[in-house]
Amino acid sequence: MTRPTRVTLYEVGPRDGLQSEAVTVPVPVKIDLINRLSAAGLTHIEAASFVSTKWVPQMADAEAVMAGIARDARVSYSALTPNLIGYTRAISSGADRVAVFASASESFSLRNINATIADSLIRFAPVLTTAEKDQVPVRAYVSCAFVCPYEGRIAPEAVLNVAQNLIDMGCYEVAISDTIGAATPADMARLLDQVLSHIPADRLAVHVHDTYGQALANILTALDYGIATFDSSVGGLGGCPYAPGASGNVATEDVLYMLNGLGIETGVDLDAIIETAWFISEALGHAPRSKLAMAKAR
Amino acid sequence: MTRPTRVTLYEVGPRDGLQSEAVTVPVPVKIDLINRLSAAGLTHIEAASFVSTKWVPQMADAEAVMAGIARDARVSYSALTPNLIGYTRAISSGADRVAVFASASESFSLRNINATIADSLIRFAPVLTTAEKDQVPVRAYVSCAFVCPYEGRIAPEAVLNVAQNLIDMGCYEVAISDTIGAATPADMARLLDQVLSHIPADRLAVHVHDTYGQALANILTALDYGIATFDSSVGGLGGCPYAPGASGNVATEDVLYMLNGLGIETGVDLDAIIETAWFISEALGHAPRSKLAMAKAR
Repeated sequence: MTRPTRVTLYEVGPRDGLQSEAVTVPVPVKIDLINRLSAAGLTHIEAASFVSTKWVPQMADAEAVMAGIARDARVSYSALTPNLIGYTRAISSGADRVAVFASASESFSLRNINATIADSLIRFAPVLTTAEKDQVPVRAYVSCAFVCPYEGRIAPEAVLNVAQNLIDMGCYEVAISDTIGAATPADMARLLDQVLSHIPADRLAVHVHDTYGQALANILTALDYGIATFDSSVGGLGGCPYAPGASGNVATEDVLYMLNGLGIETGVDLDAIIETAWFISEALGHAPRSKLAMAKAR
Repeated sequence: MTRPTRVTLYEVGPRDGLQSEAVTVPVPVKIDLINRLSAAGLTHIEAASFVSTKWVPQMADAEAVMAGIARDARVSYSALTPNLIGYTRAISSGADRVAVFASASESFSLRNINATIADSLIRFAPVLTTAEKDQVPVRAYVSCAFVCPYEGRIAPEAVLNVAQNLIDMGCYEVAISDTIGAATPADMARLLDQVLSHIPADRLAVHVHDTYGQALANILTALDYGIATFDSSVGGLGGCPYAPGASGNVATEDVLYMLNGLGIETGVDLDAIIETAWFISEALGHAPRSKLAMAKAR
């Protein structure tokens, strides 16, 4: 249990963040956002989601966004792809990586994607087979890894089971996700004790929401377990569909401030991220949802 | 370095919190706030400040507030007292404990109370002598224990020096204070490494502001050092005079949620605190400054 000296911040603001905002920003704003994020030094940016536009209308412009990005060779642009149709669209649009998502909660899986956990894995199989052929890295999200809005606490064994399946199917990394932001450091420790006994830390990422303000404490705990990839969202973009008015993903700038203080390298420029947090928040018509950005008001 | 099984939350909302709010709430609201806090199970409440009303007009009603509280025998009501005049007013008003404040930063001390650190300690001496005679416990705050808005980083040795002086002068507890909320867990660890080599954990409290969102991560670190008293402010009351729009003290409900998750006892009812956060925030005309209260919107 030693903290990493270098951490990868996996920016999910343009996808997970914007997808949960009430306002849909125009394509040029999305492109500008992604370009600002790459200029700030982020090397992993989830740029779009190729899901059915019927379900997520905020992401109907995914092709246009991908086409408009000023590509930076140091950056890997990823896209969420629930199935082979989405995968094909994503790759045609120039995505470097793709991501699939499963849930650790049966109830959430059924309500969110209308499939059991087992069926959802079967659905992804063609994506993974094709991606392997295409040599496209596939990331996986395991949602409700701590608490489910329908079932309550989720057993660490259930999370390990789904994560192991996804690794076995060929995913290079599994992002353990606190979808509703309800975990505390004790939950994080309990889960990592279980999962790390079977899956090495370098195949895991931690994806936390800051709904209950626990995100940084949870990340600090995960760092102590050697986790070195964290998902975050500039300006704390996004929200929580189960708690109107609540925070979304942990803010990139809040994580970065802590990592800087801990002497952990990221290659990301804090001031540029704060500036970007204000840029996108103004486009959305609300204040940034991060304490740091609010303290550094323009 | 083992975490405590029980923690004392020292509620500073009615004093440190309200003193930094733009709006001054009427006496009955202050009294109602304090009564709600004691009903929620808090046993240490800083209820008022007996400083010069010229400097802190928000606290000019300290006597009326103290006189109006529905006293709960389980609760210790404390008051900030910068000098013997303040001390006498506080004790006449029924304060169970008093608190003095010094700074670990010379520049901050000079600008904030117009005295060097050494002179400020000399000023408190009569308060401590009289309190000892009266058997009134005296708490001390050491402000700018991590970062000073004028000097930047403060050496842990400077903090230890002031804290040791205050203990030697008779203070039962020293609250190490991150006045501008700029510390990260690395700063907390560095400081506690130094201070705990000379002062036992049960003579220390940690008082953090959440300006940069680091408060819970810092508290988690302090818990790992065995610190068992934390200051907090219902609804995250207060602000930061050096960063308009920024957060104030760490919110009692955010700390409590984490402690509950960690299985650490406090005797405080989370739902009652959230309800109180909304009550006082509505009286102040703004939303609570805690993610938890926002997630549990009425």
